[in-house]
Amino acid sequence: MNIKNIQKQLSDFADERDWDQFHNPKNLAMALSVEASELVEIFQWLTPEQAESIMDSGESEHVKEEMADIMIYLIRMADKLNVDLESAIADKIVKNGEKHQPNT
Amino acid sequence: MNIKNIQKQLSDFADERDWDQFHNPKNLAMALSVEASELVEIFQWLTPEQAESIMDSGESEHVKEEMADIMIYLIRMADKLNVDLESAIADKIVKNGEKHQPNT
Amino acid sequence: MNIKNIQKQLSDFADERDWDQFHNPKNLAMALSVEASELVEIFQWLTPEQAESIMDSGESEHVKEEMADIMIYLIRMADKLNVDLESAIADKIVKNGEKHQPNT
Amino acid sequence: MNIKNIQKQLSDFADERDWDQFHNPKNLAMALSVEASELVEIFQWLTPEQAESIMDSGESEHVKEEMADIMIYLIRMADKLNVDLESAIADKIVKNGEKHQPNT
Repeated sequence: MNIKNIQKQLSDFADERDWDQFHNPKNLAMALSVEASELVEIFQWLTPEQAESIMDSGESEHVKEEMADIMIYLIRMADKLNVDLESAIADKIVKNGEKHQPNT
Repeated sequence: MNIKNIQKQLSDFADERDWDQFHNPKNLAMALSVEASELVEIFQWLTPEQAESIMDSGESEHVKEEMADIMIYLIRMADKLNVDLESAIADKIVKNGEKHQPNT
Repeated sequence: MNIKNIQKQLSDFADERDWDQFHNPKNLAMALSVEASELVEIFQWLTPEQAESIMDSGESEHVKEEMADIMIYLIRMADKLNVDLESAIADKIVKNGEKHQPNT
Repeated sequence: MNIKNIQKQLSDFADERDWDQFHNPKNLAMALSVEASELVEIFQWLTPEQAESIMDSGESEHVKEEMADIMIYLIRMADKLNVDLESAIADKIVKNGEKHQPNT
């Protein structure tokens, strides 16, 4: 996935709509959390078993769209804050590994 | 960003800790939304101006870690649901463009 | 506010629709957080000043409805878990007072 | 539950700590959603059955505290916005009843 390329698209998209004024990191974090809840909403009344087969249901496109929305706000926020998502993830996986030792 | 490679790391990580049993899409969506709120929490009492300069504050590493956690759960969920994040984003940007026409 | 009376109404409401099966505490917590995000969504692109005057805007009824939804799920959850909300709040205010000393 | 009385306590609490400046409705909505996610976090990896018996577990006080935090922010927000929570709930129950007809 070419993050820089997506960031350029999202930046152009915001500029063309005069949305940059709204995209401060506080607002973007809120918007991201709202999208995350829209993903949660799809699953809220399902059993774990029904959740497992969500992509075989009429909600499959909806799931993809909500996941895309989350990623879009995250990538946009990373652009505004100059965060390198790829190295942030790599660092966090190392840190998680130190915190949670594997079973032996 | 090599999503497949990260998915392999996250899958191995979960297997080594016997966590796969917890990673149904309902639980992953919940965990993702919890991480999104941890990102929101950093900004909740800040003015928009303070939020803009968050990366010059003592919270910069914290911001990166919460963004990484969100991305980690999103990438993990995409793996479990066989969602191609890159094409999901591309599709959503097109759809957003149809919904929100540019200013002229 | 008569919590017991509201709980009776909500319990009857759920029974009449055969919804009790969905109202386990995990699902109710999810639903509550989704409603909280619907409240956040109203404010996400507003300046703090615009937020202050939300009740003078066309969103005033929307705000009330989202606040009601949050309270409804919280009261329903308290019923299912036998939590006395009034004493839980009283205890938490004491605890918060110990954690955050007043300015002098 | 005496909402007015709790609102007075919360208002005094905020004044004594010079917190009123942070309590605009946008920030309070964010804080409420963050507390809702802290409640969700308790349940995120549990089965529905484990969730049902949460009050018999070591998490029972934690659950009460998170529920109290949600209610505290909701009551505080209602104060700042002059929303009558009791009538908002009554109105919403009527509206929900019209939207979702009972089973027959």
